[in-house]
Amino acid sequence: MKFATLKSKENRDGILCMVSPDHQTAVKVDTLVPHLRVALENWSRYQSQFEKIDQDLKAGKAANSFPVKIEDLHSVLPRTWLFADGSAFIHHIKLVRMARNAPLPETLKTVPLMYQAECGQFLAPTEDIPQIDFMHGTDFEAEVGVILDDVPMGISPEEALKHIRLIVLINDVSLRGLIPEELAAGFGFFQSKPTKALSPFAITVDELGSAWKDGRVHLPLHVKYNGQFFGKANAGEMHFHFGQLIAHAARTRNLAAGTLIGSGTVANEDISQGSSCLAEKRMLEQINQGKIETPFMKAGDTIEIWMENSSGKDLFGKISQKVKSVKKLF
Amino acid sequence: MKFATLKSKENRDGILCMVSPDHQTAVKVDTLVPHLRVALENWSRYQSQFEKIDQDLKAGKAANSFPVKIEDLHSVLPRTWLFADGSAFIHHIKLVRMARNAPLPETLKTVPLMYQAECGQFLAPTEDIPQIDFMHGTDFEAEVGVILDDVPMGISPEEALKHIRLIVLINDVSLRGLIPEELAAGFGFFQSKPTKALSPFAITVDELGSAWKDGRVHLPLHVKYNGQFFGKANAGEMHFHFGQLIAHAARTRNLAAGTLIGSGTVANEDISQGSSCLAEKRMLEQINQGKIETPFMKAGDTIEIWMENSSGKDLFGKISQKVKSVKKLF
Repeated sequence: MKFATLKSKENRDGILCMVSPDHQTAVKVDTLVPHLRVALENWSRYQSQFEKIDQDLKAGKAANSFPVKIEDLHSVLPRTWLFADGSAFIHHIKLVRMARNAPLPETLKTVPLMYQAECGQFLAPTEDIPQIDFMHGTDFEAEVGVILDDVPMGISPEEALKHIRLIVLINDVSLRGLIPEELAAGFGFFQSKPTKALSPFAITVDELGSAWKDGRVHLPLHVKYNGQFFGKANAGEMHFHFGQLIAHAARTRNLAAGTLIGSGTVANEDISQGSSCLAEKRMLEQINQGKIETPFMKAGDTIEIWMENSSGKDLFGKISQKVKSVKKLF
Repeated sequence: MKFATLKSKENRDGILCMVSPDHQTAVKVDTLVPHLRVALENWSRYQSQFEKIDQDLKAGKAANSFPVKIEDLHSVLPRTWLFADGSAFIHHIKLVRMARNAPLPETLKTVPLMYQAECGQFLAPTEDIPQIDFMHGTDFEAEVGVILDDVPMGISPEEALKHIRLIVLINDVSLRGLIPEELAAGFGFFQSKPTKALSPFAITVDELGSAWKDGRVHLPLHVKYNGQFFGKANAGEMHFHFGQLIAHAARTRNLAAGTLIGSGTVANEDISQGSSCLAEKRMLEQINQGKIETPFMKAGDTIEIWMENSSGKDLFGKISQKVKSVKKLF
């Protein structure tokens, strides 16, 4: 099944839709359920009705369908209660820590790194990334995320996997220039991790077929920067799988339905796969050429993030954003 | 004006009510607005109707009023998009850093410390604090918080004060035993800051009279631990005022209506005022007596947090919780 959310001026949660596999046709399901978070709170109540609509969409006979316009779509989950963003790709952690001369955590391979991220109002997948100050070092981070139903505190990694209802892509915008000072103060990221965007579509695990294995999505995550190839790192190279990340997040709290768990920046040891953020590319330039050549994002720069299945079919729609300079308000 | 939220099995956001000054009588306002976050998104639309109901409550002639039972109340804001918790009392920062042999941040007095906290499902004000493992070092932290309408990115501290719609109290439960390892890993608090509770009532700024000054609440915050006096530190001793905390949170993002900003643990240099968390008391014992005598919370321990105006009238109702041991699920 594939879900999307239409933007709505009246309702910040938008209008929930289901979408055909070719992304051409959608059906509103807002008469069935107010929005996606409510569906996640009561998944078993809605599942069979969702499945019926999905079958109709796949058979090309859904009633009241309409053509999908990507610019009408919000992030599929426009806002939620908790975005717990892991950092499960060891290669990424090594490079970004090297970039800021920070030591690797002793628990690098045994305890996931995780921070609580902004999720009160995601950008739409085609919305501009607002940049107040170029000196903040604007960067993208291409990630995979899972959206959960209610998860009880203390759950095991294996049980946790059963609570994954949907999979999405994420652009976790990062302000690299603000990170060293924030981490030095000891309270972790805050200003350095502003508003993010999710993919236009969220899909159920079964849509991935054999690419979903061991709690990981075994497919390349495509990244284009200013229209050029930037990366196609395989998301299956996660050190911790999503069940482990969920269990980490739920160790001392229940997770509310609608919780989003992020993989962290997708990164592969094989550097021919490129990168999923500028910080990595810059560090590799420093290592291999002795100096950094790639600047951080500037106004007008574009970033595209998408994922295809093994037959080359687009799965989540494209996050396609441009950096836009905004004036300081005060 | 004074608001409360009745627990509801059907609706996780509960049923919004307005409450009389003596906390005896309430009126449901759910026919006017679905719940508190929606009211915050459209405050100007509802304000005059809220004011009319408030006048009727104060005059003892509100229609369809009912007697308030504290055990029927949820946290006044049962869940929200963002809880940005500052740490604006320098005395608290000094003591807890001393306790874990951590240096003071260089920007102690110039840049607020702030972390993004759990807010997807607050505990009710009289709900048990679940404790999985006594070794986690369960502690309370008594705080003051402000609830905002929509705040634009880049706002100034002075302008930010105009976006405060409501004031509440918070018990920011902390697991001290988990903090050193989390902070050492560099990503800040996560597991060490589990689910919190808010006060039963939220009040508008005008209800504080002259006690609201310079963006601070100039009143003692009362804390009883296991039925005994524990603290009455004055919340007016905040180094950063709430406008500065809001501006810090909004530096690189818009803040969604419903955002909660916390003061951090209320603490005074004058130690005769007691403390608002166990970590401080323990550190003072270490300094003054050479050894720590007070253990962290154990099952059955009780914590009460409340605030009175200068005439001794209770303002927010009481956060009154007990620690309850829960079994590990898996």
